[in-house]
Amino acid sequence: AVAALNTEMVFIMNSLLFLVGGFLVFFMAAGFCMLETGLVRSKNATMQATKNVALFSLATIAYFLVGFNLMYPGDWVLEGWLGGIAPTVLEPVGVALEDVGDIEYASVGSDFIFQLMFCAAVASIVSGAVAERIKLWPFLVFVVILTGIIYPIQASWSWGGGFLDEMGFSDFAGSSIVHAAGGWAALAGVIVLGARYGKYGKDGRVTVMPGSNLPLATLGMFILWLGWFGFNGGSQLAMGTISDVADVSRIFANTNTAAAGGAIAALILSTVLYKKPDLTMVLNGALAGLVSITAEPLTPSLGAATLIGAVGGVIVVLTIPLLDKLKIDDVVGAIPVHLFAGLWGTMAVPLTNSDASFVTQFMGMAAIGIFMFSASLVVWLILKAVMGIRVSDEDQVTGLDKSDMGMEAYPEFSNS
Amino acid sequence: AVAALNTEMVFIMNSLLFLVGGFLVFFMAAGFCMLETGLVRSKNATMQATKNVALFSLATIAYFLVGFNLMYPGDWVLEGWLGGIAPTVLEPVGVALEDVGDIEYASVGSDFIFQLMFCAAVASIVSGAVAERIKLWPFLVFVVILTGIIYPIQASWSWGGGFLDEMGFSDFAGSSIVHAAGGWAALAGVIVLGARYGKYGKDGRVTVMPGSNLPLATLGMFILWLGWFGFNGGSQLAMGTISDVADVSRIFANTNTAAAGGAIAALILSTVLYKKPDLTMVLNGALAGLVSITAEPLTPSLGAATLIGAVGGVIVVLTIPLLDKLKIDDVVGAIPVHLFAGLWGTMAVPLTNSDASFVTQFMGMAAIGIFMFSASLVVWLILKAVMGIRVSDEDQVTGLDKSDMGMEAYPEFSNS
Amino acid sequence: AVAALNTEMVFIMNSLLFLVGGFLVFFMAAGFCMLETGLVRSKNATMQATKNVALFSLATIAYFLVGFNLMYPGDWVLEGWLGGIAPTVLEPVGVALEDVGDIEYASVGSDFIFQLMFCAAVASIVSGAVAERIKLWPFLVFVVILTGIIYPIQASWSWGGGFLDEMGFSDFAGSSIVHAAGGWAALAGVIVLGARYGKYGKDGRVTVMPGSNLPLATLGMFILWLGWFGFNGGSQLAMGTISDVADVSRIFANTNTAAAGGAIAALILSTVLYKKPDLTMVLNGALAGLVSITAEPLTPSLGAATLIGAVGGVIVVLTIPLLDKLKIDDVVGAIPVHLFAGLWGTMAVPLTNSDASFVTQFMGMAAIGIFMFSASLVVWLILKAVMGIRVSDEDQVTGLDKSDMGMEAYPEFSNS
Repeated sequence: AVAALNTEMVFIMNSLLFLVGGFLVFFMAAGFCMLETGLVRSKNATMQATKNVALFSLATIAYFLVGFNLMYPGDWVLEGWLGGIAPTVLEPVGVALEDVGDIEYASVGSDFIFQLMFCAAVASIVSGAVAERIKLWPFLVFVVILTGIIYPIQASWSWGGGFLDEMGFSDFAGSSIVHAAGGWAALAGVIVLGARYGKYGKDGRVTVMPGSNLPLATLGMFILWLGWFGFNGGSQLAMGTISDVADVSRIFANTNTAAAGGAIAALILSTVLYKKPDLTMVLNGALAGLVSITAEPLTPSLGAATLIGAVGGVIVVLTIPLLDKLKIDDVVGAIPVHLFAGLWGTMAVPLTNSDASFVTQFMGMAAIGIFMFSASLVVWLILKAVMGIRVSDEDQVTGLDKSDMGMEAYPEFSNS
Repeated sequence: AVAALNTEMVFIMNSLLFLVGGFLVFFMAAGFCMLETGLVRSKNATMQATKNVALFSLATIAYFLVGFNLMYPGDWVLEGWLGGIAPTVLEPVGVALEDVGDIEYASVGSDFIFQLMFCAAVASIVSGAVAERIKLWPFLVFVVILTGIIYPIQASWSWGGGFLDEMGFSDFAGSSIVHAAGGWAALAGVIVLGARYGKYGKDGRVTVMPGSNLPLATLGMFILWLGWFGFNGGSQLAMGTISDVADVSRIFANTNTAAAGGAIAALILSTVLYKKPDLTMVLNGALAGLVSITAEPLTPSLGAATLIGAVGGVIVVLTIPLLDKLKIDDVVGAIPVHLFAGLWGTMAVPLTNSDASFVTQFMGMAAIGIFMFSASLVVWLILKAVMGIRVSDEDQVTGLDKSDMGMEAYPEFSNS
Repeated sequence: AVAALNTEMVFIMNSLLFLVGGFLVFFMAAGFCMLETGLVRSKNATMQATKNVALFSLATIAYFLVGFNLMYPGDWVLEGWLGGIAPTVLEPVGVALEDVGDIEYASVGSDFIFQLMFCAAVASIVSGAVAERIKLWPFLVFVVILTGIIYPIQASWSWGGGFLDEMGFSDFAGSSIVHAAGGWAALAGVIVLGARYGKYGKDGRVTVMPGSNLPLATLGMFILWLGWFGFNGGSQLAMGTISDVADVSRIFANTNTAAAGGAIAALILSTVLYKKPDLTMVLNGALAGLVSITAEPLTPSLGAATLIGAVGGVIVVLTIPLLDKLKIDDVVGAIPVHLFAGLWGTMAVPLTNSDASFVTQFMGMAAIGIFMFSASLVVWLILKAVMGIRVSDEDQVTGLDKSDMGMEAYPEFSNS
């Protein structure tokens, strides 16, 4: 009787971890939305908010129809590489002990809701990079393919027990699997799409296009930081033993301190480089710290976590201007934050986790990168050919809110 | 000993569910406030924020003084119809096992805090509909009566074990009991109050009065979506067994997907009807999806939940212009979202839950509607006669923030 | 076996309480940021957001390097008065039962993350008071000293088992230890720093400098209210028995109702005094209600909690103009809210908790006040002498965002 009780309690606690983690990571959708809406110009803010609500909604539907079972294959179509397609079926109402999917784990619904939020985050990363000039509908088609097919296939390699998992690739909560993956999809999109009208002059001049609402962007960053406790903490996947709950606690502490390290590193470095502190760098520095620790939030000490995050912050400050030199127009800094810091986080795992190796980390990182970038590129190119993905220069000047939506974000304030 | 331990753990887990659900639903007060403040014109935004903070605070006090025990009668004054009046008394500090109110359930304080948040939500629904022209103090008097008396009496019929519960009326988390109820109170208020000055021209022309801050309204929607995990998930009322936690998980998944269905349906339909996507429709579509699934978030499959939510989104897009034709001026779309989608959700229960019947659902829906509308109407009419409820046309033109508060929401930005 | 299981579950539940409380209190950093950013003028909003992100990040690092062990001394350097310095070390990954720091309590990481958030809150309180004219870097140096050294030493006296704890000083979640402490540090800063340029005319005239974004400030208040459920509820420090979870529930209910009492008292009193309701007073009233109940959120009845909070709201309305008479320029009302209401809350403990005495409460309050004010004053004076802490009058007129950051918060809206 005691053993049975224990099993039930572990199941309950694990499910609870996923539910709490799930609503925290859900809220990151709001965080991305506020960050991105605050960093675009006001004439595109309604569109950016619309994209964010719609992408999350479509990710929800695509993931339950296709993605979840593609990511966690019962039977592989191609062993370790490709799962099968089937909609998600939850456990029946009032499920009995003997009918539970996996009594050692957690309820299917709780697992689903948690994993869904990761999938949606991938799409949120993309929306920031391609903001202010992508058309709504082709973007949403991309989101459906990304969240229903591309991401789940890639994620199955590691988290669904596929070949990267077999190899020993280690990415605790997804520096590569989620963040770099989203960054690769964004990079492909930005390249196919081209820069915003007026961003890069013929003489190499870069026009600064400041975000319209920095307090809103700051709120977005704080919401993302909050959500990350669920993102990384929930990825322990268990809370029903003292060692699991203590590990979740370690993860909370390390996640928090890595964000702090990233923010402070970006604050100091941006001040040194540009003489004045730069809020958007600080925000992106904190996020880069969070991305950096995501591949291994458990094993580092607090000091190591701070340094891992700080390196992420440094990467962001150094690479944001670099992208501009390459005329890669990433509106919110999503590629430095999620891709570059994600790669760093992935490679940093062996520094504190002796079960991981640099070679395997590199191979996993490369496999994910090649697939996510190539698959995304193909989809973007098809969408460009079939639907067209770029808003006309005239409409970009007018602003997408007026041209494509007929609805201004701040109709009483804007000077434009 | 094992059994006793088990009972304690169930009590702890149930109470925890209410506490987590409670803080999530609390945050919906902020969601309503941001949604409404973003959707009013900037000259009324300070007033709208003030109303939202004050209504939540008054609901708190009215519900503990009167509402909670009226809603959960120990002794009925009129069996099944009307409870008695007594302030809420929590369990003593450090309560012993044998002194707990109901050891099979949860702590009184956790139950109270959870139920209070539902009561406050009813008042939040009203404040959006009557915005931009109602006077502060009569509105607050209405809130006290609504949250202290009208809503608790009505809710006692179902959730307090009253006659609707006896009949088998099924409204899991309150599509009718909370959302339609708030919508009925709002409808009565809007009718008594009349439209905003200048909204409807003599020639049938409708003046669009766009919201002043759509990013803020979007944030409000996201916060409401977040809170709904607590709203519906917590309404399982138990989390101490594997079947309960699996049910809470189902509810999370269905709630989320219904919101997604509502948002996407509204996005597509508004684009089809008006050629351009409409962010406010998408926001209200997501909320309508949430309201629609609230009567039965447990039994549907993910696919059914998506469709139930999508119908809610369709309802909103179709009925918002309808209200304008009837010159019913609902500033934020609260009546379509909470009343119409709430009625739909209530009637949809038998589609997936064989324990419910259409007849009983209709009767419950009607009983709630007749009472909420009539009682609210009487109170509104009395308030109109005694205090006056409508801000003068001149002050509406000036804006309530200047005329009634002397404090602008955005003193440095507004063009008005 | 049953006993062992029970111990483990209690450990898990206690740790979970800290983790949930921890992320809720973390979010208060966003609440403070939004409140303060909304209440400053738009020309200083980027700077205010930057300060808030940076202060939280630095508090994180200072607290793990020095503060946590200084606050909870294993060995005292000066028994009951001063702990030793050592960085925080978390329990090892996958900790075994026998290696847990305190199996009767909670995981070290969960305790650390929860306590860290309190420490950061102290610094957030300061940032609001000294806004709009303090230089970034000296402010951040102060934050490091405050969160790494001053606050932890003071907090060790009560919560680390020091002399105030021995005396029987009772401050459940920190009306004095956190809120008044932050208020004292803020008061010292405001005095050393002086008022904003133009705030007080030579003829005694006070220039009103209205907040630039009241909806954002309202959001900040709601986030703080939300976070307070974790702040006070988590301070029960245990959730693994029915009496503990029932106590946490009581605390939730009392915390909520005290906020409501504060808001309504401020609404009514400000209307009576100034003829018109004042949103900023209502926001600060709610916060003052929360601060007031923080010293004893467990023992009051709901009615008593409402009154304790209401007195807090009254204090705020009466003392905000008083500070202006004294030419103490507290931009957001942090001193009335956190210091004055904190003192009231501390002295109110014996009204409902018979284990506390007025004399002891007064002595604790005085000891904390003398130390926090003096130590802060010394640091501020040194910073003033060494670095200079005040932005020049010209740059204040221009606004700190342009002068010190080169980045506007709302570049497209501002009229300034």
